[in-house]
Amino acid sequence: MGVITLLTDFGTRDWFVGSMKGVILGIDPVAEIVDLTHEVPPQDITSAAVILRSACGYFPEGTVHMAVVDPGVGTERRAIAARTRRHFLVGPDNGVLHPVLDAEGGGKVVEIRHPRARLASLSRTFHGRDLFAPAAAHLSLGVPLEELGPPLREIVPLELPRSRRVEKGKVEGEVLYVDRFGNLVTTIREEDLEGWPPGEVEVVVGEIRASGLRPSYASGREGEPIALFGSIGYLEVALPGGNVAVAAGIGRGERVSVVSARRRRK
Amino acid sequence: MGVITLLTDFGTRDWFVGSMKGVILGIDPVAEIVDLTHEVPPQDITSAAVILRSACGYFPEGTVHMAVVDPGVGTERRAIAARTRRHFLVGPDNGVLHPVLDAEGGGKVVEIRHPRARLASLSRTFHGRDLFAPAAAHLSLGVPLEELGPPLREIVPLELPRSRRVEKGKVEGEVLYVDRFGNLVTTIREEDLEGWPPGEVEVVVGEIRASGLRPSYASGREGEPIALFGSIGYLEVALPGGNVAVAAGIGRGERVSVVSARRRRK
Amino acid sequence: MGVITLLTDFGTRDWFVGSMKGVILGIDPVAEIVDLTHEVPPQDITSAAVILRSACGYFPEGTVHMAVVDPGVGTERRAIAARTRRHFLVGPDNGVLHPVLDAEGGGKVVEIRHPRARLASLSRTFHGRDLFAPAAAHLSLGVPLEELGPPLREIVPLELPRSRRVEKGKVEGEVLYVDRFGNLVTTIREEDLEGWPPGEVEVVVGEIRASGLRPSYASGREGEPIALFGSIGYLEVALPGGNVAVAAGIGRGERVSVVSARRRRK
Repeated sequence: MGVITLLTDFGTRDWFVGSMKGVILGIDPVAEIVDLTHEVPPQDITSAAVILRSACGYFPEGTVHMAVVDPGVGTERRAIAARTRRHFLVGPDNGVLHPVLDAEGGGKVVEIRHPRARLASLSRTFHGRDLFAPAAAHLSLGVPLEELGPPLREIVPLELPRSRRVEKGKVEGEVLYVDRFGNLVTTIREEDLEGWPPGEVEVVVGEIRASGLRPSYASGREGEPIALFGSIGYLEVALPGGNVAVAAGIGRGERVSVVSARRRRK
Repeated sequence: MGVITLLTDFGTRDWFVGSMKGVILGIDPVAEIVDLTHEVPPQDITSAAVILRSACGYFPEGTVHMAVVDPGVGTERRAIAARTRRHFLVGPDNGVLHPVLDAEGGGKVVEIRHPRARLASLSRTFHGRDLFAPAAAHLSLGVPLEELGPPLREIVPLELPRSRRVEKGKVEGEVLYVDRFGNLVTTIREEDLEGWPPGEVEVVVGEIRASGLRPSYASGREGEPIALFGSIGYLEVALPGGNVAVAAGIGRGERVSVVSARRRRK
Repeated sequence: MGVITLLTDFGTRDWFVGSMKGVILGIDPVAEIVDLTHEVPPQDITSAAVILRSACGYFPEGTVHMAVVDPGVGTERRAIAARTRRHFLVGPDNGVLHPVLDAEGGGKVVEIRHPRARLASLSRTFHGRDLFAPAAAHLSLGVPLEELGPPLREIVPLELPRSRRVEKGKVEGEVLYVDRFGNLVTTIREEDLEGWPPGEVEVVVGEIRASGLRPSYASGREGEPIALFGSIGYLEVALPGGNVAVAAGIGRGERVSVVSARRRRK
């Protein structure tokens, strides 16, 4: 039984997601379909890429991940499928798949062009249903990637923002993602602060200042912002008992700086 | 493995949908359950009927579609199950299943009355769990429709609004549905504009005017309304980069008129 | 095929739920995963417990129910798994599982400590993915409860509020839960009003007064509050055609009193 994950900005209130699942089950009746989410903000390719990269490593080898955030549907943008060292990927060639391809490595990419990988009636407005769903279902059935279409050497890149060490004891980055709890997931990774004593780390984002690194969300006092490394390995700023993004009016792209207090005392 | 789809106005925050799935899996442990949506506006039978009709054709033959938007639960309204040329349908006899029965044809309808098709403890407030879920699961298991109860000759009709050609080169209709992106899905179909040059079509809805038919959502300019035929074959009005329903304050039932510019020049 | 249900406050817009499902499918590839809901208000253990208790009885014997509303993740709070007469339960030891354990009886509880029941890389912020999902998947595979860790004699209790008979013909309780339709689910059960003539029951909650017990939501007049016993056996107050919780500004914990009109006339 193959696993197929779905990641879209379609929402769940119309017939869009159901129609894609119907098409998949018509081709692969025993596919195990998992919704990553359908609540990506409309046309927000970066958020979709972050979500896909954060979840995909937890799925079994051979899983087919289908990501359809596709503002260019019906234009000349290509439809692609890929195989990495662990998974298959299906989606538009607009960057959404790039960070996972990059992270998992060993990628081989094709343009989806074979008529078998499409519904006979291909609309120009809903490739999730008419093209990506059939392609994903065929991969899940075991159809070789190469049969979906010709190989591609290059795809549209999407470089997610990164942190940078501006000087010894000072790292700068930005807010990469705001989660459902309002936690600010930044671009700063554990290795960026390697060797820094957790108690001496100071994090500043907008008007928010958090001192020291905590081990968990529960280890702060209600109403006082804390910093910690979250479950996907990035530095996060959170507000125990509250929503720091809303309280401080902070969103994606806001600059974050981290300094070692030891450095400041020198 | 049978497929059962669920379409309700129950939302996803309480125990309603989970309870129905538990009942289904207790009867048919290998059913593949697919949520069409549970976000139909409370008691909005028309929206449910549009969603069901738009998705159901993409599901494999033999799928059981269960639609529970049921303001009359606990009253004398009947509970029905049906078999069309392609699918099974289960739901209240309030019109929600009628457009699909009509579209798929060959329908045979029964009233669900056999005790086997109900939980022993039948509440008067939650037939989705106590009656429709068991009936759907039995159909998915292969129980013949006729065993659920006696045949019905007539059911409560629901005629969805249609377009009409008011004169040569002029078609009128209305907004049938507003989707998650704010796109206005109208009652006007491709055949209504057969032979009209796409570049000369003018669409008016409320204060919105769109000239020409576009091939895709991406083929307009940001901020300028466009008209196009969407993925279920109806004329839609959309706002590239925006939500036209919100921007123009337009909802279901708003009148839409389409004229051929060529006609106007005569 | 084992059934695993998920109940969390994670929402459905990030990668949290998908990651848990990936972990489950990596351990038990044929698990049937059912979302109870992921929209529990953040950290609201009581709502989660009510939802779990309301749905779990409808699932087949042997179902694994996993409930992760876990404000104490990463602290000393224990992770537990249990077997009742009908089901398995997995979650934090913070009360969320207690009402079901209590209701189903025959419970045996262990602390989840065996390394097999965790991902190798156990975060301190996301035990849903790293600990509860693996434990649930192992139980679903048939691993004996006792192999997950040592037995526990006591767990953290959670006593849901109850009704009380204040005098003959008068019962008091409170609002236990507000559902998606705004219906006020109270703590008052059918047995509390045993022998009362339905037509003579009067329910008061906040400014709302409802006379008589109705058989169904549809049996009142639009705009007039009604009282009825709902699908989980509790007295509910509803507003036909409206949302009584919003209209009357009533939430969980609001006091409810029920009197027999016959008593008042004496």
